[in-house]
Amino acid sequence: MLKNKEKNIIGVFDSGLGGLNILKHFLKDLPQYDYLYLADTARVPYGNHSQETIYHYTLEAVDFLFKQGVRLIILACNTASSQALRRLQKEYLINNYPDRRILGVIIPLAEEVSRSKRIGVIGTRATINSQAYNLEIKKINNQAKIISNSTPLLVPLIEEWPVSKDIIHKILKKYLKPLKEKRVQELILGCTHYPFLLKDIRKIMGSHCQVFDPGHIISIKLKNYLQRHPEFQTENSKEGKLQFYISDESEKFTKLGSKFLGQTIKDYKIAKL
Amino acid sequence: MLKNKEKNIIGVFDSGLGGLNILKHFLKDLPQYDYLYLADTARVPYGNHSQETIYHYTLEAVDFLFKQGVRLIILACNTASSQALRRLQKEYLINNYPDRRILGVIIPLAEEVSRSKRIGVIGTRATINSQAYNLEIKKINNQAKIISNSTPLLVPLIEEWPVSKDIIHKILKKYLKPLKEKRVQELILGCTHYPFLLKDIRKIMGSHCQVFDPGHIISIKLKNYLQRHPEFQTENSKEGKLQFYISDESEKFTKLGSKFLGQTIKDYKIAKL
Repeated sequence: MLKNKEKNIIGVFDSGLGGLNILKHFLKDLPQYDYLYLADTARVPYGNHSQETIYHYTLEAVDFLFKQGVRLIILACNTASSQALRRLQKEYLINNYPDRRILGVIIPLAEEVSRSKRIGVIGTRATINSQAYNLEIKKINNQAKIISNSTPLLVPLIEEWPVSKDIIHKILKKYLKPLKEKRVQELILGCTHYPFLLKDIRKIMGSHCQVFDPGHIISIKLKNYLQRHPEFQTENSKEGKLQFYISDESEKFTKLGSKFLGQTIKDYKIAKL
Repeated sequence: MLKNKEKNIIGVFDSGLGGLNILKHFLKDLPQYDYLYLADTARVPYGNHSQETIYHYTLEAVDFLFKQGVRLIILACNTASSQALRRLQKEYLINNYPDRRILGVIIPLAEEVSRSKRIGVIGTRATINSQAYNLEIKKINNQAKIISNSTPLLVPLIEEWPVSKDIIHKILKKYLKPLKEKRVQELILGCTHYPFLLKDIRKIMGSHCQVFDPGHIISIKLKNYLQRHPEFQTENSKEGKLQFYISDESEKFTKLGSKFLGQTIKDYKIAKL
């Protein structure tokens, strides 16, 4: 346990700016923490790469964050969570930083929906191919039927908003069709970019399907985790500091990122990954 | 000059599979050469990254190709050509391999269109922001008016073909509108993916605008270059060998890549970049 609780910084990693959607909820629900957000803007997007490459890139990111003094990291990125988290915990964390923690987004979201009979999942190709959500949901509810679809065009289309405005609804309908046909009762948005389309997705899926905002769920679960783990807690009194690192200059990170975060990103540093 | 001309291998580099569009023309026009095609599938796409990052990645790719014995490299990638070529020639080539050559795609395409009054250019954000085509065209024809537009959604949409079929025409019309309104007489497809949409683009631009297949132009220019540079020539009699290297496992490379190349890609090796 740290002697000086004020030094606890929560690291948030995403391949790009999508994780700012998650960080937004942390800032609301856990404002007393310091946060260090890292985006691998030099190698984004991860979603079409192999497991080995995603593991290697995520390892570098996590290592960078730990070297900045972070003791608890949230892999906000679904692709990194599904492809790298387990191996990082087994091979890297235990040997290098046994008293620190890396948490992902798959388990908290899987727990949330696992009481339903028919569950939908959308995400990048890597996340869907990994079957990570299926595995975690089945652990809790072996009877659940999981219908998943990879939706690789959503990230580039969201990132080119508003040019994509006229066409995004059409592709969304196409991607969601098999999930709607199977009458899924709950839908996991398995990529941090997708809450940007929350209203559209809810409209297409209809009132019989519950579509959560993943940032909201993950933030609540983190709050619970911190209550159970006093070693990562921080003083309640002070307002946290917020720092951003990106691995490559990116106008998009500050422009679109500020939209995702709900506040202006004024300053960032470059991380050599 | 090499004593054994048979050993001349032409290296073709692209961030992804788009350059196979160019290689297809080389195989037709210069079948006697050996080719080594390298795609940086672990870090594709380059088009939204900073100049520094693109330079760094391209340097690693070029260095890899030279270490395989390649003596002449074509940067088929417009983004790499516009962001890295000049600096590679000045800082890297001269110090490391002064008797080898790296050629790009910007100059041959700029030369081809530069007699027109109004020239259109489309490409990735990095290529368009670099103004590389503008600079090269203006060197030849200072009076030319150049109208360019970055079209960042075309690569992901082409890569997700045929899911994107219903929407690609709509976004293409939107992207080409400012060029059509300015009545450009010739249009440069400044990205190796775009010939995939050649028919659509020609249809939208109409009969008053000439839209070249960049692979065809670059191949003819390479043929001329090789005639002027006997040190890179090879024996006419033999049929060349074709090798592929990619930096990350990619199903897309063999599947969509075979479509781009016009023949099946059966085998490849992994390059650690």
